[in-house]
Amino acid sequence: MNSSIQPPSTSAGQTQVLLNRYQWVRGQSEALISPLSIEDCNLQAAAFVSPAKWHLAHTTWFFETFILLQHRHDYQVYDEHFQYLFNSYYNGIGEQFSRPNRHLLSRPTLDQIQHYRADIDDQMCSLITEGISNEVAQLIELGLNHEQQHQELLLMDIKYCLFQNPLYPAYDAELKTDSIAPLRPLEMLEYDEQVVSIGREGTFDFCFDNETPKHKTLLTPFALANRLVSNAEYLQFISDGGYDNPLLWLSDGWSWRQQQKCSAPYYWLKRDGRWFEYTLAGLQPLNPNQPLCHINYYEAQAFATWSGKRLPTEFEWEWVANKEIEMPKNERLHPHYSVDNDFFHQVWQWTQSAYQAYPGYKPAAGAVGEYNGKFMTNQYVLKGGCALTPEGHVRTTYRNFFYPQDFWPMTGIRLAEDR
Amino acid sequence: MNSSIQPPSTSAGQTQVLLNRYQWVRGQSEALISPLSIEDCNLQAAAFVSPAKWHLAHTTWFFETFILLQHRHDYQVYDEHFQYLFNSYYNGIGEQFSRPNRHLLSRPTLDQIQHYRADIDDQMCSLITEGISNEVAQLIELGLNHEQQHQELLLMDIKYCLFQNPLYPAYDAELKTDSIAPLRPLEMLEYDEQVVSIGREGTFDFCFDNETPKHKTLLTPFALANRLVSNAEYLQFISDGGYDNPLLWLSDGWSWRQQQKCSAPYYWLKRDGRWFEYTLAGLQPLNPNQPLCHINYYEAQAFATWSGKRLPTEFEWEWVANKEIEMPKNERLHPHYSVDNDFFHQVWQWTQSAYQAYPGYKPAAGAVGEYNGKFMTNQYVLKGGCALTPEGHVRTTYRNFFYPQDFWPMTGIRLAEDR
Amino acid sequence: MNSSIQPPSTSAGQTQVLLNRYQWVRGQSEALISPLSIEDCNLQAAAFVSPAKWHLAHTTWFFETFILLQHRHDYQVYDEHFQYLFNSYYNGIGEQFSRPNRHLLSRPTLDQIQHYRADIDDQMCSLITEGISNEVAQLIELGLNHEQQHQELLLMDIKYCLFQNPLYPAYDAELKTDSIAPLRPLEMLEYDEQVVSIGREGTFDFCFDNETPKHKTLLTPFALANRLVSNAEYLQFISDGGYDNPLLWLSDGWSWRQQQKCSAPYYWLKRDGRWFEYTLAGLQPLNPNQPLCHINYYEAQAFATWSGKRLPTEFEWEWVANKEIEMPKNERLHPHYSVDNDFFHQVWQWTQSAYQAYPGYKPAAGAVGEYNGKFMTNQYVLKGGCALTPEGHVRTTYRNFFYPQDFWPMTGIRLAEDR
Amino acid sequence: MNSSIQPPSTSAGQTQVLLNRYQWVRGQSEALISPLSIEDCNLQAAAFVSPAKWHLAHTTWFFETFILLQHRHDYQVYDEHFQYLFNSYYNGIGEQFSRPNRHLLSRPTLDQIQHYRADIDDQMCSLITEGISNEVAQLIELGLNHEQQHQELLLMDIKYCLFQNPLYPAYDAELKTDSIAPLRPLEMLEYDEQVVSIGREGTFDFCFDNETPKHKTLLTPFALANRLVSNAEYLQFISDGGYDNPLLWLSDGWSWRQQQKCSAPYYWLKRDGRWFEYTLAGLQPLNPNQPLCHINYYEAQAFATWSGKRLPTEFEWEWVANKEIEMPKNERLHPHYSVDNDFFHQVWQWTQSAYQAYPGYKPAAGAVGEYNGKFMTNQYVLKGGCALTPEGHVRTTYRNFFYPQDFWPMTGIRLAEDR
Repeated sequence: MNSSIQPPSTSAGQTQVLLNRYQWVRGQSEALISPLSIEDCNLQAAAFVSPAKWHLAHTTWFFETFILLQHRHDYQVYDEHFQYLFNSYYNGIGEQFSRPNRHLLSRPTLDQIQHYRADIDDQMCSLITEGISNEVAQLIELGLNHEQQHQELLLMDIKYCLFQNPLYPAYDAELKTDSIAPLRPLEMLEYDEQVVSIGREGTFDFCFDNETPKHKTLLTPFALANRLVSNAEYLQFISDGGYDNPLLWLSDGWSWRQQQKCSAPYYWLKRDGRWFEYTLAGLQPLNPNQPLCHINYYEAQAFATWSGKRLPTEFEWEWVANKEIEMPKNERLHPHYSVDNDFFHQVWQWTQSAYQAYPGYKPAAGAVGEYNGKFMTNQYVLKGGCALTPEGHVRTTYRNFFYPQDFWPMTGIRLAEDR
Repeated sequence: MNSSIQPPSTSAGQTQVLLNRYQWVRGQSEALISPLSIEDCNLQAAAFVSPAKWHLAHTTWFFETFILLQHRHDYQVYDEHFQYLFNSYYNGIGEQFSRPNRHLLSRPTLDQIQHYRADIDDQMCSLITEGISNEVAQLIELGLNHEQQHQELLLMDIKYCLFQNPLYPAYDAELKTDSIAPLRPLEMLEYDEQVVSIGREGTFDFCFDNETPKHKTLLTPFALANRLVSNAEYLQFISDGGYDNPLLWLSDGWSWRQQQKCSAPYYWLKRDGRWFEYTLAGLQPLNPNQPLCHINYYEAQAFATWSGKRLPTEFEWEWVANKEIEMPKNERLHPHYSVDNDFFHQVWQWTQSAYQAYPGYKPAAGAVGEYNGKFMTNQYVLKGGCALTPEGHVRTTYRNFFYPQDFWPMTGIRLAEDR
Repeated sequence: MNSSIQPPSTSAGQTQVLLNRYQWVRGQSEALISPLSIEDCNLQAAAFVSPAKWHLAHTTWFFETFILLQHRHDYQVYDEHFQYLFNSYYNGIGEQFSRPNRHLLSRPTLDQIQHYRADIDDQMCSLITEGISNEVAQLIELGLNHEQQHQELLLMDIKYCLFQNPLYPAYDAELKTDSIAPLRPLEMLEYDEQVVSIGREGTFDFCFDNETPKHKTLLTPFALANRLVSNAEYLQFISDGGYDNPLLWLSDGWSWRQQQKCSAPYYWLKRDGRWFEYTLAGLQPLNPNQPLCHINYYEAQAFATWSGKRLPTEFEWEWVANKEIEMPKNERLHPHYSVDNDFFHQVWQWTQSAYQAYPGYKPAAGAVGEYNGKFMTNQYVLKGGCALTPEGHVRTTYRNFFYPQDFWPMTGIRLAEDR
Repeated sequence: MNSSIQPPSTSAGQTQVLLNRYQWVRGQSEALISPLSIEDCNLQAAAFVSPAKWHLAHTTWFFETFILLQHRHDYQVYDEHFQYLFNSYYNGIGEQFSRPNRHLLSRPTLDQIQHYRADIDDQMCSLITEGISNEVAQLIELGLNHEQQHQELLLMDIKYCLFQNPLYPAYDAELKTDSIAPLRPLEMLEYDEQVVSIGREGTFDFCFDNETPKHKTLLTPFALANRLVSNAEYLQFISDGGYDNPLLWLSDGWSWRQQQKCSAPYYWLKRDGRWFEYTLAGLQPLNPNQPLCHINYYEAQAFATWSGKRLPTEFEWEWVANKEIEMPKNERLHPHYSVDNDFFHQVWQWTQSAYQAYPGYKPAAGAVGEYNGKFMTNQYVLKGGCALTPEGHVRTTYRNFFYPQDFWPMTGIRLAEDR
């Protein structure tokens, strides 16, 4: 969160806007679980995913802990156990229940968690209606952005969990995953050396603290691809022995490859000589003319090396993306090529930039300061937003970050090269 | 199953008896999950337990696979995936879904599994009503005994799973766990050397194949305790440093102890200086005058060594138990001392006998031959039956078996010594 | 050790005999490392083996700890660190250095350990010469038998360690491993039901405490093979798909097989369609007419099931072996068929008997009581002695014991069946 | 290696210089093992270290593989097995023997490896004497720098291995580890925003490929400490609860801390209330006024956060270091404060810069291209060189790199801050 935002307290009009937005965002989370069974909502197939039920509870805990408990007079905690059970990683708040064991929390039940949500929502709406300071309004905005991040996580996680079931159940069997636009020829757009401005100043619009401060950086001459890498192009990499040639891989990437014994993206399956891809609509024949997705940094880097190119830096990406004016809508839960640009809302695009602090970066004060800064090691920056990313949650300065072995976000590749 | 039973085909009266028994046993399984939430039914907190939902499906699969598919004309399999998903360990039938991942099967849902049960029950009842051979009747009896074993497993497993939740939810908060009878003084009943008869002949009554054949064995002079070891006695072992003295433990037991860093039975917790025990009624103050339960073989052996005694052999136990005429009812889900004998229906009693074949043992023919024989290594025989064991499922020749590190069955100790 | 042996103190003649025997046994250990490099002597390729250097030190520690420190007036410990470094598992003596890390003890060097041996030998010889009680004489005899067990372990262990080197170095390239006698036809020798006497009374001759007390047991009618299973017979098991048929295996055996992904005995390698066997003479073409060796209990049991037979009990084996009068010499370090009987000195023969206490068994008093008794769980009894077993260390009552997954002792199969 | 260096072939004078340098560097490696026993030379206490013997063989393999096999007419490989056994990670050359198992290679013995070294040295000296192209001269220079890197690794590794022995043997008990200069007060030297030049052009002097190309980068205003953090300062961090306060740590750092359960640098031991530090001279009382060493990135970052400061970027460090003219000699094997600057030859200094390619970086062509580039992920850049770093092997552009959890290099901290 950008701590420098300090306009005066909210007006009546602003209150209604915030109330509407609060209710809309919270409603979106509940809408996401409507296709799921109660058992689905408790699935946790690996330590890096969380049950849908837990996401619903944790996002509620966030409002309770950082807003109601701090800013609502005489607030009584809903259930003391929840402070422990639904804290993710905020050591400043207290100890946390073991992350890999979240699926063991059959109680509270989904029904009980929905009561918890309803109760906290009542209290939050009262608080907003009664009038709040700008500081609290900003914390609420942070809470809503936090909940939207968990909406995307919920979809990523449930996709991973359902895929473990040999029945390959669909999240939504009616979902359209077919292509919209034809595949454009790949072109490398060229850019000259220049000092550019990166990141965000504190302004009235929300941003996360890791996007600040705005600062200058020096770009050397480079070129950036006009579109995302397609499944067809990745199939060429595979058929050219890409997964078996250690010289294409980083050392850690090759170790990962050797250990996983993999030879294709995680969600791809070959049956009777044909490729299929698991999507939120279930198992589908692989469409060669759609954007590649769900590859990790090591795979992205090996593909780029095989292509005689490289991944972009986050700075190169951000500066070019700033030229793209249209921010398309997210209409589907699977990436596709659109008629316009595909910088946004298709796949998160790996950059070669390690996730680190911008010069002069300061984490937000207080417990929410654990939100971003403490993760600034061993991860890479991804840009753009994917087909699961909530509406209005995409911007050029946004810095998503994952570990190089992570494949379960909806990740893809935009190539770059030195000039 | 004892394969030597071959009376002629079932009469009308026998048919009605079997039909009633079938419906009663199947209904008992469903009754067991009534206190549970849908999420509870999918819990699997360790590889050695299974979700309640899976127990319901697997016991149904057993009837479908070994009876309907073999013996019902034109039977169409209910769902081909279930043959894979709900096979436990019958390699003769086919591959099995990964055991530690049963909790990942959110689909089929509990509701769908209940439909599966209803459908198979319809078909089974039709088959029985239409008249069956004695061979099939015996397989059905095996299936019912199998289901009863899973009823006990379901309770053991759900106890373990609910205990992982820091809320320590009760399976049934109304359950009575208090004591009925006072603790009798411990006496060692003495027996002379003799050749005794052990195990079962094939007869009209059901038994498992591992109880056969009946054979002679030589007992050397010994004494056996008149009652089970109590919590109070085990507390003395603990306060005497029993968990910290390697000289009391078997070498493998001490390795287990070092690795687990434990200092009390698994379900015991100390809070503010007082001992509590987790039961199916939730966390309860530890009652010193109840039978000790949920200790493993290593703990049982260390306690016996500390007592200057030993565990009985399965032959000593069986021969003495045969003298005890009354087989008390199982009225509770937690062990207690009764006014009469406590040989049965309180705790499974560890013997020092490795689980091995009786001389001349032959596994049942066909796929059900994997039921008992292939487990005859690395495990120990337990005798007696516990407070979770279904009615009519207890007999002196019954050989239960678990690994020495297993603590989650309801296990206890009856001491023995050489004379 | 059999604690009932209590003849009066040793005479001058006995002293000289013991002195000679002490020097001869100790010298044998040193002779065993003469073909090894200094680096070889420090190898430890798995937690279950120990460096040759450590065996030399530990056997010396045994004499220092149980004899010199207890029975030599004013004895000063050689080096206090050695009490910790070279204690194997005697908790009654104190803590032990981490077993899997013995290869990290580059210091003391081999040279320093040889000085340790020489110093302790001086002190021991002085003690013996000055005259000792029978109790001490018996402890020395235990120490010598202990050292001989470690001589066999040293050879087993170095074989395992050298095999990890892709150069497959020989322990002794001059060693003869070829066959001596032709393969006799397999016959099953038949025996009737009878009560037999098993084990040893305390007598003047040495035995381990686990061989006592002598007791009666009841044998049911059985047959026992006249010779060991050959490599050729095991090759038939392999070519018949024995390693891929779960129905031949115990459940734990099949888990082991699945995890190991093995398809032949550990020391067998197939190269260009031909089988080779690693021996202490290096890699050799597999001789089909030699006794099979280095299979574990699971493999032995699966082979026996495939043969339509079973493994013998330790009681069956011992009673039949007692009829074999000649105890052949151990002339080689690899098993072979001899012209006479092959009950002894070829391979340790797996029995189906779990390693447990005989009725009335009592471990030796004091710290040496940890020698045998505490291992009486999860292991199986092996009988006979192998080609690595020291001269005079083989007798019918001897009970060797290993875990069912252990393959690195020189183990083989003699088949049995019920009649 | 910087591939742009292409002067004409070497002159006679250059030949003699290179020959002298070759013999001197190679001799240094052998001198390093003179205090070690044969067993010491085969120690490998963790997968991340290698036996000293292996370092001696691998550096020789490097000359054989990249120079003799490529550039010596009719060269016959010394031993084909060595190509596999002593290849570290060059996939372009072939498969490699399992890294964690290098301690299992008792053969070839140390003596045999010394013969291998002598033979390769003979061939190399002949090759050099006969006259070589500049390309080969550069490869030899790379091989010598490579060997010097392994000289430092050999010392780091043997320190780690000897420390596992409870005897805490010294590498060199005569080594001086006491302090030379008093501790200067800590001052933060201030620098303004500027565009600076970083890295190296291809020149006649050797550098590694990862130091190229020379390029511009933008520094924002910062300050850098005038000296290294001392043991005394780190003791304050410890006594202030630094190891127990998650808010000071990166998320991955705290996970590491929780898993390791550590509360001080790896080589520190507290005995009877006093701190000791393990050094190559053995266990020594901790000197508070010496530079802190052997902490990992997580510890360095937590200390910096606790200090209200941060770690420098590699660019800040390099630019300031370029101002320091004097490059002191490395006279000791333990860091100390010198009278002059301590930028060099005391400890490797963690930077907050992820180890990544400079803009326009290209790995060297051929198999030696695996030297640096493929490690450019998950690691951090360290600057300066430590007390173990070979003479003439220290320069401001040098980029050392290790994983954030690595503590066994001789690492320390120089603080920085934003202005």
